[in-house]
Amino acid sequence: MNPDTNVLAFYPFPSDSICLRMREVLTEDNPDIKIILDYLSANRGKMLRPRLVFLTASLAPHDQEVVRDAAVAVELIHMASLVHDDVIDQAMTRRGQDSLNRRWGNHASVLAGDYLFATAFHLINQHDMRSIMENITTTIRIMCVGEIKQMSLIRNLDITEEDYLQKTYGKTACLFASACKVGALAADLPDDIAYDLEQYGLCLGYAYQIIDDLLDFQADSNRWGKSVGKDLEEGNITLPVIYAMQNTIYGPRLRSLLEDESRPVSEKMAEIVEILSVTGAFEESLQLARQFIERAMAYLKELPPGPAAQHLGTLSGYLLETYENMLAQPLQTSQNEAVH
Amino acid sequence: MNPDTNVLAFYPFPSDSICLRMREVLTEDNPDIKIILDYLSANRGKMLRPRLVFLTASLAPHDQEVVRDAAVAVELIHMASLVHDDVIDQAMTRRGQDSLNRRWGNHASVLAGDYLFATAFHLINQHDMRSIMENITTTIRIMCVGEIKQMSLIRNLDITEEDYLQKTYGKTACLFASACKVGALAADLPDDIAYDLEQYGLCLGYAYQIIDDLLDFQADSNRWGKSVGKDLEEGNITLPVIYAMQNTIYGPRLRSLLEDESRPVSEKMAEIVEILSVTGAFEESLQLARQFIERAMAYLKELPPGPAAQHLGTLSGYLLETYENMLAQPLQTSQNEAVH
Repeated sequence: MNPDTNVLAFYPFPSDSICLRMREVLTEDNPDIKIILDYLSANRGKMLRPRLVFLTASLAPHDQEVVRDAAVAVELIHMASLVHDDVIDQAMTRRGQDSLNRRWGNHASVLAGDYLFATAFHLINQHDMRSIMENITTTIRIMCVGEIKQMSLIRNLDITEEDYLQKTYGKTACLFASACKVGALAADLPDDIAYDLEQYGLCLGYAYQIIDDLLDFQADSNRWGKSVGKDLEEGNITLPVIYAMQNTIYGPRLRSLLEDESRPVSEKMAEIVEILSVTGAFEESLQLARQFIERAMAYLKELPPGPAAQHLGTLSGYLLETYENMLAQPLQTSQNEAVH
Repeated sequence: MNPDTNVLAFYPFPSDSICLRMREVLTEDNPDIKIILDYLSANRGKMLRPRLVFLTASLAPHDQEVVRDAAVAVELIHMASLVHDDVIDQAMTRRGQDSLNRRWGNHASVLAGDYLFATAFHLINQHDMRSIMENITTTIRIMCVGEIKQMSLIRNLDITEEDYLQKTYGKTACLFASACKVGALAADLPDDIAYDLEQYGLCLGYAYQIIDDLLDFQADSNRWGKSVGKDLEEGNITLPVIYAMQNTIYGPRLRSLLEDESRPVSEKMAEIVEILSVTGAFEESLQLARQFIERAMAYLKELPPGPAAQHLGTLSGYLLETYENMLAQPLQTSQNEAVH
């Protein structure tokens, strides 16, 4: 179970209708693909992106089928990018279970991802929504360019905060922004409101990724479905590491730890976490996430008041709060373990 | 140079305009993806599928920009599927050059393929052509399901002619059919004509793949950009092999040759080619290709007469003829070499 399921359960989200539609569009007679699609749809995440589509669209009267299909399409694109990411990273787990490529190989994973993309476009095309198609195809292009750019940053210890934010834009923030914009387009909201919602999604996406990267330093694979230090093992240098490397006292030690390939990351993790902690890099990263949440909230000010606007505000607040609570405890544990 | 360039040059195809548009839509500022996209667009194939879009659309007055973009989109989808196929097959060459994944790795290849797909959809969406989007998204889903089905047939010596035709449908024929249907839709041709053109494309696609599979037994990597016996090396059991295995005298020997994993395929190729030749399996396969061409031609009978209809007829005839000429010579050479 995902840690924030309870928080998300507060929101009026037509989860059953979305899941039913997803199963409907991912139904194939062929048993070879059916088993893969069943596995993917059974193994759902938090559905944050379809929630954003639904909430933003709820700011105005809308065609429920259009919004439902737009929400499903956005989730399909997210799933496709995860499946393709797993091929790329040779990931062994995803959402606490075997990744698709571990179970069925790269071959099936690439094809299943392509199938998900095509299904998403097919679904959007059922409605006369060229603006949504425009937004989503552009978003995917940005995501691909961003991911390719990210390749050049792997294991690069000279990565700057700006590089990190750029790659986070392509990896996460642009799809969050797209989810909000798509909801606005589906409900035919005025351009200025659609713009504010897109910016809200963008800021939320940055905050989400920063927090997700922080969690990598204390994730418990049973609770989070992720193992600790996976990012560093893959050469993915995240914000707390970037900040700590700038520290004049501990920075050089951290850099030499990361450069030392004679020991596996898992053996070095306790000391790395200690450095990130004593340099204040965790807190500094969390502070940036908070700033993004504040900026996200500011974009909600001009929205037509009502429950949907309120929910969007509460969602970002709750997300941060929940994650901060999660962070607080294991962080100290790791620190204590590391110190002595 | 492709062997059939001269034949294709007979047709009034706006090659320059198509290539220019392709470069235009594949332009990105980011140098990391630019180098990949430049490599892909410089390394063009025969452009058969965009030619089919253009020729079928030419049966009626049409918006040239719509047809051009539809043709480019179909080629982008073909390129994307090739790039993703190369990840799958760990192919080392494509069109006589290093494959993308050999040069930039699986990571970049998966992302570049996704980028090509998204660009194709983005391009179609520039015009109000939902029927084209419907056709193309459905085609990609069929291609993915077909490729996943094909996985279960790898190294399966019990594969039947029907299995082969089924996998050929997903692998090649459905995109040929789609190219023709898309051209018909772009030119707003009547439904019955669009149907005939789609069937024409389907039959042409089957014939094309059968001939392509035949060429794998005599391809010269310098001339064809492919090495001999690549299909068998990858466990891809094609039509001539299926036919020859049915031969009561030579079938068992062929099967045991294929089952014998102690020797590389390259060492066994001379004997395999000899068996395919003496059992008449090459000729029988070519005969089926001829039948598909005849069926393709039959679908052209009801078309509005004119140069476009004539070109479609000549195209299928020329394709077969050119390939037959190519086949004739090396086949005998291989046979002679194999016999003594």
